[in-house]
Amino acid sequence: MSKAPATLAEYRQILGALPGPDAGAIADAADRNGQLTKPPAALGRLEDVAAWYAGWRGDGRPRIEAPQVVIFAGNHGVAARGVSAFPPEVTVQMVANFEAGGAAINQLAKTFGARMDVVALDLDRPTGDFTEGPAMSEDDLLAALSAGWDAVDENADLLVTGEMGIGNTTAAAALAHALYGGKAEDWAGRGTGVDDAGLARKAEVVAAGVARHGGGDGLDLLGALGGREIAAMAGAILRARVAGIPVILDGFICCSAAACLQAVAADGLDHCVAGHVSAEGAHPALLERLGKAPLLSLGLRLGEGSGAALAIGVLQGAVACHSGMATFAEAGVSAG
Amino acid sequence: MSKAPATLAEYRQILGALPGPDAGAIADAADRNGQLTKPPAALGRLEDVAAWYAGWRGDGRPRIEAPQVVIFAGNHGVAARGVSAFPPEVTVQMVANFEAGGAAINQLAKTFGARMDVVALDLDRPTGDFTEGPAMSEDDLLAALSAGWDAVDENADLLVTGEMGIGNTTAAAALAHALYGGKAEDWAGRGTGVDDAGLARKAEVVAAGVARHGGGDGLDLLGALGGREIAAMAGAILRARVAGIPVILDGFICCSAAACLQAVAADGLDHCVAGHVSAEGAHPALLERLGKAPLLSLGLRLGEGSGAALAIGVLQGAVACHSGMATFAEAGVSAG
Repeated sequence: MSKAPATLAEYRQILGALPGPDAGAIADAADRNGQLTKPPAALGRLEDVAAWYAGWRGDGRPRIEAPQVVIFAGNHGVAARGVSAFPPEVTVQMVANFEAGGAAINQLAKTFGARMDVVALDLDRPTGDFTEGPAMSEDDLLAALSAGWDAVDENADLLVTGEMGIGNTTAAAALAHALYGGKAEDWAGRGTGVDDAGLARKAEVVAAGVARHGGGDGLDLLGALGGREIAAMAGAILRARVAGIPVILDGFICCSAAACLQAVAADGLDHCVAGHVSAEGAHPALLERLGKAPLLSLGLRLGEGSGAALAIGVLQGAVACHSGMATFAEAGVSAG
Repeated sequence: MSKAPATLAEYRQILGALPGPDAGAIADAADRNGQLTKPPAALGRLEDVAAWYAGWRGDGRPRIEAPQVVIFAGNHGVAARGVSAFPPEVTVQMVANFEAGGAAINQLAKTFGARMDVVALDLDRPTGDFTEGPAMSEDDLLAALSAGWDAVDENADLLVTGEMGIGNTTAAAALAHALYGGKAEDWAGRGTGVDDAGLARKAEVVAAGVARHGGGDGLDLLGALGGREIAAMAGAILRARVAGIPVILDGFICCSAAACLQAVAADGLDHCVAGHVSAEGAHPALLERLGKAPLLSLGLRLGEGSGAALAIGVLQGAVACHSGMATFAEAGVSAG
C-alpha cells in the first residue's frame, strides 16, 4: 500500500489489522546469532535489536543501508499562551536552518549516513488553541497524517521521525494526560526551558485542554490536542509499519504521537524501538506506558529526532555485528 | 615523545608530570556551544563530551577523522586453573578471526570508520600463574607496556583499546581487588560465562593472587597480577595522553588497566571517557572507583573493545554537532 488513507475510518481499519514481523526471519536470526564468534548473549541488547530488526525486515541477515530521518514542523495555537521559552517564529527559522544544514539533526543524520527530509506543515496557519476548541479539524488532521505517510521513502530500511514546533511539548503533554490520566503536572515539563511560572501555565493549559477534549480514541485526541507535526509523525510511523520499515522513536513529542497509535492498536508500535530517554520530565513515564526501554540515556532534550538519530549508530553496530561476524565454524574457533 | 620509555622509573616520571587539557580550547568550545542553534544544554551529555574532546585535542572546533581501535591479545597462566568457560587456545583462534575480519570488533570498527590494529603478545608464552609467582618479570612488563605504547598511531584523533585473552577477567579482578580492597568475591565475575563452581574457583584464585602480591604501586601490581594485553592497554592509554589523543575506555579488563595508571597518577585518566558499562558484575564498581560515568549501558560483556567502539558513534555525533552546527547569528534564529 503506497497511497495514504483518505479517511480516519481507513486509518482505523489499517490499525486493526497490522502486519506482524516475519517469524521465519526471526528464527533464522536466532539460529545465526547462536553460531557467531562470541560467548552466548555477550553482545547484550545489540543481539535483541538485531533480531527485532531482522524480523521486521523479513531477513535473517539484514543490512542497514538506507536510513531516513524526516523532520516535521508545525505551529501551535497554544504557543500564544506563554508555554514556551522561545517565540513561535523560531519554528520557521529552524526549518530554514534544517534546510541549510545547520541544525544538530543535520550533523547527526550526516554522521550516520542517513537521508534527511524536512516537511513544513502550514507554518503560517497555527493549529487552534485547544483550550478554546479542537487543535485541528478532521480535514486538517487527515492532511497532516497524509503528509507523514507520504514523507516515508518506501526504500528506506530504518526510519527516524523528528519534529520542530514551538509549543509542542504542551500538545504532547495534553495527549499523554488524555491517554493515561494522572494529573496535568505529571505530564507537563520544561520543554526548551520554561521557568517555574511558565511551567505552571503549561500545566493549566494542559488541564484545560484535556477537560475540554478528553474523550475519543487516539486519533480523535490527536486531532483535538495534537499538532500537525505530531499527527504527521503518527502517519509516518504507521506507513513505516505497512512498508516493513523499523522505526526509532525519539523523545517526548515523538512518543506522544506513537502513543496515539498504540491507543488504537496495542501492537501498533511493535516495529518501533525507543532511541533514547530524554531529559524532558515525563519522557520516562511515557516510555513506560509504551513498554519501551530506551537504547540511550544522555540527557538530550532537543527534539528534531536528535536522540533517535544518535541511536541509528547503535542499530548500525548491532546489525553489522549480527550480519557481518563469522560463525565458529567459519572462523575455526572453539565454541567453549 | 614518540619512543617508548625503557624503564619503569621513566613510566613513573611521565605519570608524575602529565600534560593537561588546553584551557583555551575549552573556553573556545564553551563560547561556541553557547551560540549554537539549540536551547542551552539541550544536547545534554553530548555537549560535555564535545567540550572534553576539544580540550584534549587543543581545538575549540575539532573533528573526529581518524579513530583507531587497537586490540591486544595475551595468554594467562591462571587460565589453567579453570577460571574460564573457554579453553586458552581460543585466544589465538580469535586473533586469527580479528585478522580475517570476522569478529564483532571488526564490524564495529568498520561501522564507525575506525582503523583497527591487532597486536598478539607472545601467545605461546602465557604469563605466570600469579597464585604461584608474578605474572610477568619486569622485562616482560616493559615489553608489554612498550607494545601498547608503540601500537598507538600518533595521527589518530581518538583511541579505543580492546583485548582478548582467555582468563583475563581473573587478572582484571585481581588488579581491582589489590587496588581497591574489599573481598575477592566483590571483583570476580562470570566473564565469558563461568558457572557457579567456576566463579567460586575464580574468587579463590583472585584472593590467593592478591594475598601473594598485594603490595607495590599500580605498575608493580600490573606486572604481578596483570597480563600482557592488560599492560599493553595501559601503555597505549598513557601514550595517547602524551600524544593528545582522547581515549574511550571499554569494559572491566580495559578499566583494570586504566586503574593501574590512575593508582600512580590521580589525573592519569582525565583524557579518557567510559564508553559503556558492561554486564560483567564488578564493572559498575570499577567505573565508580575511576570516577567515570559510562556513555552506554547495553548489557555487553564481550571485551574486544566492543562497547567502546560502539561509543565512537556517540562521540562522532557529539563532535559533529558541536563543530558543524550553525550559530544563532549565522542561521538567523531568535535566541529565545
